[in-house]
Amino acid sequence: MPSISDRGCKMPASPIRKLVPFAEAAKKRGIKVYHLNIGQPDIRTPEVALNAIRNFDQQVIEYSHSAGNESYRTKLAAYYRNIGINIGSEDIIITTGGSEAISFAFKVCMNPGDEVIIPEPFYTNYNAFALSAGVKVIPITSSIRDGFALPPISEFEKSITPRTKAIMVCNPNNPTGYLYSKEELLQLRDLVLKHDLYLFADEVYREFCYDGNKHFSVMNLEGLEDHAVLMDSVSKRYSECGVRIGALISKNKRLIATALKFAQARLSPPSLGQVIGEASLETPATYFEEVYNEYISRRNLVIEELNKIPGVFAPMPKGAFYSVISLPIDNADTFCQWLLEEFEYKGQTVMLAPATGFYATEGLGLNEARIAYVLKKDDLRNAVKCLEEALKVYPGRR
Amino acid sequence: MPSISDRGCKMPASPIRKLVPFAEAAKKRGIKVYHLNIGQPDIRTPEVALNAIRNFDQQVIEYSHSAGNESYRTKLAAYYRNIGINIGSEDIIITTGGSEAISFAFKVCMNPGDEVIIPEPFYTNYNAFALSAGVKVIPITSSIRDGFALPPISEFEKSITPRTKAIMVCNPNNPTGYLYSKEELLQLRDLVLKHDLYLFADEVYREFCYDGNKHFSVMNLEGLEDHAVLMDSVSKRYSECGVRIGALISKNKRLIATALKFAQARLSPPSLGQVIGEASLETPATYFEEVYNEYISRRNLVIEELNKIPGVFAPMPKGAFYSVISLPIDNADTFCQWLLEEFEYKGQTVMLAPATGFYATEGLGLNEARIAYVLKKDDLRNAVKCLEEALKVYPGRR
Repeated sequence: MPSISDRGCKMPASPIRKLVPFAEAAKKRGIKVYHLNIGQPDIRTPEVALNAIRNFDQQVIEYSHSAGNESYRTKLAAYYRNIGINIGSEDIIITTGGSEAISFAFKVCMNPGDEVIIPEPFYTNYNAFALSAGVKVIPITSSIRDGFALPPISEFEKSITPRTKAIMVCNPNNPTGYLYSKEELLQLRDLVLKHDLYLFADEVYREFCYDGNKHFSVMNLEGLEDHAVLMDSVSKRYSECGVRIGALISKNKRLIATALKFAQARLSPPSLGQVIGEASLETPATYFEEVYNEYISRRNLVIEELNKIPGVFAPMPKGAFYSVISLPIDNADTFCQWLLEEFEYKGQTVMLAPATGFYATEGLGLNEARIAYVLKKDDLRNAVKCLEEALKVYPGRR
Repeated sequence: MPSISDRGCKMPASPIRKLVPFAEAAKKRGIKVYHLNIGQPDIRTPEVALNAIRNFDQQVIEYSHSAGNESYRTKLAAYYRNIGINIGSEDIIITTGGSEAISFAFKVCMNPGDEVIIPEPFYTNYNAFALSAGVKVIPITSSIRDGFALPPISEFEKSITPRTKAIMVCNPNNPTGYLYSKEELLQLRDLVLKHDLYLFADEVYREFCYDGNKHFSVMNLEGLEDHAVLMDSVSKRYSECGVRIGALISKNKRLIATALKFAQARLSPPSLGQVIGEASLETPATYFEEVYNEYISRRNLVIEELNKIPGVFAPMPKGAFYSVISLPIDNADTFCQWLLEEFEYKGQTVMLAPATGFYATEGLGLNEARIAYVLKKDDLRNAVKCLEEALKVYPGRR
C-alpha cells in the first residue's frame, strides 16, 4: 500500500473531534448534551441575506472573479472604511472562509521551515494551516491570571530567530475572549518593524467587543502598511458559518498580487456565498444591537454562574463569545470525555472543549477548558449546573 | 519590507490570465471577442438545482460536517453506484470544488520533494497545487499526432524514481479532449501496482464522452482499491462552476481518514453549494440528453470548420469540451496576444488559450492552442472565421 505523507501523519485530530463519538453515544443513550464546545452560533442569519438567496435569479451559477466579485469587494471596502479601516477593493481578496485567508497568508509570506510566533492558547486550526504550509508555530504562553493579556514583549523578542517571518494574533481572541488593546498592538508594531516581520491578525470577532471596549485593527497601525495582514470572515458577524466567505486584506501590493495567483489556482470563491455576503452588508443596525445584547447577557450569566462553582475560575471576556476557564481537575481531556461517557445529571450533561488543544506547549491547559456561550440562557444555566454537579463527583478532582 | 515566499514567487500566472487585460482592452475598443479560451459553459444550471436554492428555508446557515452533509454523501454514493462505481458514503469527502480534492490528495499522499507523473499537455492548475504542496510534476509528453493518446508505458517507467509517489490523469482530458481507454488504464494499473504508487484521476468531465465511447473509471480497476484516488466536481456536470462543490473519493481508508483531518482544519465545504449539489442529483435525463446533443453538434461544427483552414489541425475530441489544435504560427503566446491587440475582422476577434501553459516542458506547445467549444453554434462559426482570417494576415505565420 502506498504511504501517507509525513504532514498527513502529523496533522493533529483536535481534542474536540476526538470527543464527538462520545457525545453521539451519550445522545443515543437519551442524554441531553449541552454544547459549550463549539463556535457555531445559534443566532439567526440576517433576513436580508436569506432573502438574497431566495431571490437568486441567475440561470447559470458561474465562476466568479478569483479575487471575488468586483461589486462585493467594492461594497466590502466601503464597510471597512465605515468602521475606520481605510482600504480599497484592490486590497481585498475574497476567500473561501477565513480559513483560506489564513492558508493563503501562510503560503505567500513563509517558506517551509519558517516560523510564526503566536500567543497561546490559540485557535487549534492555525496548527493545521502551518503544518500544511510547512511552517513552524512558536508559541508564547499567555496566562489565565491576567485574563490572557498579551505576554510581555520581551518574551516575543526572545523567541525571534532568523527563520521568524511573522507574528499572529486573533483579536478579539478565540479561545480566550481577550481583546488586545491599542497599546499592546503598538508594542507588536514596534517589534514587527524592528525585525521586518509580518503581523497577521485574525479579526473575525471584531463586532463582538463588550463593556465599551473599542476594537483596534492592525490595519490602523501606522507605518505597518507593508506588514499588516488582516484575515476576516462573515461567519460570526452575520451567523453565516456555512457560506464559507472570508477575506484576505493587506495594503502590501506584492502580497496581494501573489495571493491572487493562489486564488486563481482554485478558480473562485463560492458564488452563492458571495451573494449572501454582499447582501449582508445591508443588515440593519438593530440586528447587531439584538445580537450584542443577547451575547452580553449570556456572557454575564455564564461567567457569574461559573465563578460561583468552588474551584472554578472564569475570566471575564472582553470580546468574542468564548472564555478559557480553569477547573479543579487532573486532566481536561479525561474530564471532558468522562462528562460524556460516565456522567449525567437529571438526564443531562455538558460538552466542553479541553484547552489542551489550544496550547502548542505540551502539558499546558490540563486544568482548563474553553466554553462558547452560543446557547440560549436557560440552556447555559442548565449546562453550568451540570458542570457544578459533575465537579462534585469527578474522581480526578484536584 | 518583509519578503514573499519562494513558492509565492514561483507560482505561475497562467498564459490565459496574462491575456485577460488585452481582451478587456479590445472590448473597450468596441471589438466583439469570442471566448474559446475558457471552461465556463454557457449551459443552464438544472432547474431542480436553482429551485432548491430559491426554496432554501433554514434560518441559520451553519457549518456542515467537514466531510460534507451525510444526506448528500449518501445520495452521491448512490449516484456513483448507479454508474457502476461501487462506493459508499464513507469513501467520499465533499470538497470545495474539484480544486480542493486535488489539493488534499497531493498533501495527503506526497511529501515535499516527492514526484507526480502527469501526461502533458495537462490542466495548468495541477502545477499550482503541486507547487503549493512542495511536490514536483514530472511530465510525459503526449502527441497531437495520435490525438494525445496515453504515451507508451515505457516512457512512464523511465521517469519513475524513488521520489515518485503518484501518476495522475484527467479523463476525459482537459485540455486535449482525449478519452483514455480501459486498455490504457489497465496498463497504468499494472505500472502503479508494480511500483506501489497512487493513481490519481480527475474525472470531472465523465458525463461528456462522445461517439459511443464509454468512460472507464480508475475506481473500477481491480486490485487498485488502495491506490486509486478519484477527484470529481459538480461544476461541469451540471454547469455549476460557481458553487464550488467537488469530491475526493477513495477506497483507501487511511487516505480518507487523513484527508478528513485536512477537511476539519478548514471546517466545512460550502453549505449552500451542497444544497445545490444534492438537489442536482435529481436532474432529469432529458437535461443531459439536451446538453449532450448540444456539445456533439458544437464539437462537430468547430472541428470540421477548423480542419478546413489551411495549416490547421484539430484532432476529434472523444470527450470533455476542449481540443488542442495545431496552428501554422511561430509562437502561440504572441499569436493569441496579437489576436486581441492588433487583429479584428468585421469588428470581431477570438480569444484562444495558448497551449504553452499546458506543457511543463519548456518550448512545447508553441504552435498549439486550446479551444473550448462552450459557445452557441453561430458564435463558434464566427470565432472560427476570425481565426481563419487572422491566419491569413498574421506576420508570424509559418
